[in-house]
Amino acid sequence: MPALPSREVRLAARPVGLPKPSDFAVAEAAAPEPQAGQVQVKNLWMSVDPYMRGRMYDRPSYVPPFQIGEALQGHALGQVVASGDPGFAPGDLVLHMFGWREAVTHVAAAFQKFDPRGLPPEAFLGVVGMPGLTAYAGLLQIGQPQPGETVFVSGGAGAVGSIVAQIAKLKGCTVVASAGSDEKCRWLESLGIDKAVNYKTCGNLLEAVRAAAPKGIDVYFDNVGGEHLEVALELARPFARFVECGMISQYNETGVPVGPRNLIYVVGKSLKIQGFIVSQFAGLKDQFEADMAEWIKAGKLKWEETVKHGIEEAAPAFLGLFSGANAGKMLVKLA
Amino acid sequence: MPALPSREVRLAARPVGLPKPSDFAVAEAAAPEPQAGQVQVKNLWMSVDPYMRGRMYDRPSYVPPFQIGEALQGHALGQVVASGDPGFAPGDLVLHMFGWREAVTHVAAAFQKFDPRGLPPEAFLGVVGMPGLTAYAGLLQIGQPQPGETVFVSGGAGAVGSIVAQIAKLKGCTVVASAGSDEKCRWLESLGIDKAVNYKTCGNLLEAVRAAAPKGIDVYFDNVGGEHLEVALELARPFARFVECGMISQYNETGVPVGPRNLIYVVGKSLKIQGFIVSQFAGLKDQFEADMAEWIKAGKLKWEETVKHGIEEAAPAFLGLFSGANAGKMLVKLA
Repeated sequence: MPALPSREVRLAARPVGLPKPSDFAVAEAAAPEPQAGQVQVKNLWMSVDPYMRGRMYDRPSYVPPFQIGEALQGHALGQVVASGDPGFAPGDLVLHMFGWREAVTHVAAAFQKFDPRGLPPEAFLGVVGMPGLTAYAGLLQIGQPQPGETVFVSGGAGAVGSIVAQIAKLKGCTVVASAGSDEKCRWLESLGIDKAVNYKTCGNLLEAVRAAAPKGIDVYFDNVGGEHLEVALELARPFARFVECGMISQYNETGVPVGPRNLIYVVGKSLKIQGFIVSQFAGLKDQFEADMAEWIKAGKLKWEETVKHGIEEAAPAFLGLFSGANAGKMLVKLA
Repeated sequence: MPALPSREVRLAARPVGLPKPSDFAVAEAAAPEPQAGQVQVKNLWMSVDPYMRGRMYDRPSYVPPFQIGEALQGHALGQVVASGDPGFAPGDLVLHMFGWREAVTHVAAAFQKFDPRGLPPEAFLGVVGMPGLTAYAGLLQIGQPQPGETVFVSGGAGAVGSIVAQIAKLKGCTVVASAGSDEKCRWLESLGIDKAVNYKTCGNLLEAVRAAAPKGIDVYFDNVGGEHLEVALELARPFARFVECGMISQYNETGVPVGPRNLIYVVGKSLKIQGFIVSQFAGLKDQFEADMAEWIKAGKLKWEETVKHGIEEAAPAFLGLFSGANAGKMLVKLA
């Protein structure tokens, strides 16, 4: 078995503020012939996700920082080309964390075979993968939406937000979402979301969301932070739950960020504001996949993907997350 | 039974920023002879508490705002003088919400007889009253401290904070507290608190607390907000719980408050930041009183009171809460 040629995306420089193309470099590499206990994989799809921005800072966090000159990492879907491990055979589809490259050879334990449950395999990078589990577990475990309650989700047209919004509808809630274009808003409303607010053009986000949620907000699923979080604090009903999934508006902040000026409501309204990392809900994976497959097959849950093609498009796809270039999950098709 | 003469403290003007003496006025009133179903009570003690500042704003909240020209309200301890209700007899000690006055006549349901459990009755305005339950329920129900964990409590020498700090020690935690004078810090350390930091003189609060809690913070009990909250966010360990009891540093804010600039840690560290109102834990009252009485009798829990005398001192006592004039519970002895 020969080595597989592979191109990979390396971190060329630590981004300052909004990442730019020159912070990334495509380099030639190779996935060597697998030794005993190793598997050689050709990647078919890779994922770009907002959380990866955090790994580009040189600071301790829940995952170690990316290193300059080294290939980035992230979820990917590949196909086994050659295997030195009895658990894998050529042709097997596998999920793994060696995205941002065309091929990889690594120990077998780094790769995970999976049951596609009748779905396109790349859906396991999105709606039934990490972003979907993030939506499902964050909303249901932390948000605990009850029928008749109002759920507000920011970044509602994103990979996570669009799933949150639909699961909240399935749970009997009134759902208000924010998104960054009229087209995204129309898409969300076509999915049955009660009201989608274009935060870029609505003028006054607080009044727009207040009009859409006149009884106030019981659950806020936060992907954005910043002004969205202040609006949610203002409109929160007593005992509201804030699911703190992400704050994409803050990820590229270079100055001192502005904290939510009305956070004091957390006391008077008895709010719960809780962050999480999806890995803490890994135990829900089977239930999540089963529920999602059922909802998808019944036509109750839909998803979008925005697909870029080729490893050269990986960095631009990632950059596009911060300008809202994606509707639903942003993916890069590698082969 | 004649009417009882009574002086009462009325809200003369809505405070702007830090309340001042002229925002309050002592006026003559009377507690009339009780009708059938009413009770006439002479007040012995009244409580002043930081949360009352919130009721001086004209805005909706979990309790209605005080009205200008009307007597303020708050927890008080009184003795029945005359009763038109078979459930009460002259001499009975009662707890009620008609503080800020020397006497009151009201329907019997507004008064609550209680078992002093061998403690001084005025303790039921503090250590075994609302502030004590606030400490007990907030720390144990929301903070859920585990043996060996580190608890940081701001306003550690106050009516709530000093009880939080001691219960956390009883639960096997390392406890760091902040307070506003060296004397208060010495008192806290004499109670067994591991380290008390004088936030007014320590120079750099973050570094002072970091030195006192080198492993980081697992539970933060917040009475102060502002810089204290930012310090706690910075030092929080993953999955830390923030008990949001109050933010006294913000109560007199006249401009736009500054939110915690590092709130984004709530995501990456999977923090839970939860506010509460003590009334939601009313169901714990019996267990709380029993636990506290046991700890007090065993010498494991101590408390301080700062006592002012006479209704004329009620407003100054309240104002003193914002300059740290109290160690432990601030009370006004009325008779």
